[in-house]
Amino acid sequence: MGTPDSAASSPLAIIAGAGDLPRIAADHVVRAGREVFVVVVEGETSGDYSDLPHEIVRIGAAGRLKEILLERRCRDVFMTGTFRRPRFSEIDWDMGTVRALSSIMRLRFGGDDKVVNGVVHIFESEGFRIVGPREVLPGLVADAGVLGKVKPSRRARTDIADGLAAIRLMGRLDIGQAVVALSRRIIAVEAAEGTDAMIRRCGDLRSSGRVALPPPSGVLVKAAKPGQELRLDMPVVGIDTVRAAIHVGLEGIALEAGAVLMPRRREALELADQAGLFVCGVARGGEAGPE
Amino acid sequence: MGTPDSAASSPLAIIAGAGDLPRIAADHVVRAGREVFVVVVEGETSGDYSDLPHEIVRIGAAGRLKEILLERRCRDVFMTGTFRRPRFSEIDWDMGTVRALSSIMRLRFGGDDKVVNGVVHIFESEGFRIVGPREVLPGLVADAGVLGKVKPSRRARTDIADGLAAIRLMGRLDIGQAVVALSRRIIAVEAAEGTDAMIRRCGDLRSSGRVALPPPSGVLVKAAKPGQELRLDMPVVGIDTVRAAIHVGLEGIALEAGAVLMPRRREALELADQAGLFVCGVARGGEAGPE
Repeated sequence: MGTPDSAASSPLAIIAGAGDLPRIAADHVVRAGREVFVVVVEGETSGDYSDLPHEIVRIGAAGRLKEILLERRCRDVFMTGTFRRPRFSEIDWDMGTVRALSSIMRLRFGGDDKVVNGVVHIFESEGFRIVGPREVLPGLVADAGVLGKVKPSRRARTDIADGLAAIRLMGRLDIGQAVVALSRRIIAVEAAEGTDAMIRRCGDLRSSGRVALPPPSGVLVKAAKPGQELRLDMPVVGIDTVRAAIHVGLEGIALEAGAVLMPRRREALELADQAGLFVCGVARGGEAGPE
Repeated sequence: MGTPDSAASSPLAIIAGAGDLPRIAADHVVRAGREVFVVVVEGETSGDYSDLPHEIVRIGAAGRLKEILLERRCRDVFMTGTFRRPRFSEIDWDMGTVRALSSIMRLRFGGDDKVVNGVVHIFESEGFRIVGPREVLPGLVADAGVLGKVKPSRRARTDIADGLAAIRLMGRLDIGQAVVALSRRIIAVEAAEGTDAMIRRCGDLRSSGRVALPPPSGVLVKAAKPGQELRLDMPVVGIDTVRAAIHVGLEGIALEAGAVLMPRRREALELADQAGLFVCGVARGGEAGPE
């Protein structure tokens, strides 16, 4: 068997977590002419991949996973969708797992960054290549500039700069990847609750009078943390995020260019356009794209 | 008339915002043997002060307020309880207001710190002295060490250090004054929603599985922002905060010593003791008090 030399000529292994991201990714890759092989993880994968080459593995069965990937002649691995952290009781104690154990042990305590960097290390030490959305789904990664039809106002551009500054500062602590900035204040900071829950909170802030400025106002700024492993853990902005932003009356969404995945990009931008919500990609440096 | 020389011999003017803080403060000061004069602010004050010397003023009537304070021979002013930010339409355009206007204009855009520092400046430029809880309610300000009967565990002490580090870093951005730290992660950050709402969110994080560690775990860390004006704007931990922390299964509460007001301190600590929740005061530097 052995590992093929040319990566693109081999099937892309998609390790599928929960959510619709693995399905969207698989369809894109197939449309672009590359074969895929879907690793369906028991208790994690939520979609139906029966129409595609696939195999079911148990979580933590590292040795079995390696065997399957070699059998299927996969060298590139794209891990996408959401995963719970495995519990020790769920791990299959085969030989591969035992070898990976020292790495897993190091990962169990610590922020997400450490877990993710550890996963990359485990795969690469076994001869696989972890690939990310920039390589596999380049058309769905936010690029710089105004992405929809609505442009950010002057005030929104200040909000964007404030939000980026906050995210940059907090990244050192492995906290959130998103904030809502409004009129020189950071009114919401994401930690473990997730972006959409944070946005919904802004609706409560308006109804309780804690935020007085009438809608549309306020900008969701979402970026990667410094040093975030973008191949395995790129921040995502989906339709639900756009919907939540519209619902609470935000003025727009600013995403770090090259660092945020928009899985249903076209639909998301159409929805934003209809609602008058701007969506733009900004360089980490802080400029809000073209006027 | 004129301003009396000895501050303590003159009545303490309490400008009463909403909530029970002004009432608690007035009762404490009276019990300690000093006269009070309560300024009831129309549309802001929520308590009943009819049993105490008081007068009703309209918000923004700066000239009238100055007259009243001079008539009542007040030199020390203690502003407590919550206030909305005045809208321009609510301001009485008397001469005092016109003089204060340039300051007010500077305050309208910006975080809370700027507003608060501006208020101090306005009063002091008129010859009054703004006093704070450390002076007026010293027994209700958190001091260093274990405040109740429960001591923080070793893990909790790490959470406290992590939380303080996060707050220190974020203070530069005029964001939150409180976070919840749990097992090397910051799981919630307070911005505009207030501390109690942030704590309640931790219950959702548990029920959704985003936080897996079973209760009791996680520490609320609350501190002042660097440079925060503690006379006018000291962070507060009330009974509701303690109740929320117990409800979501936190392990304890750590407060910056000398910088957090506990208005119903005894009741709050009794409640915490009964529930096995620790409450401690910590120096800004990061030590979690005695073992």
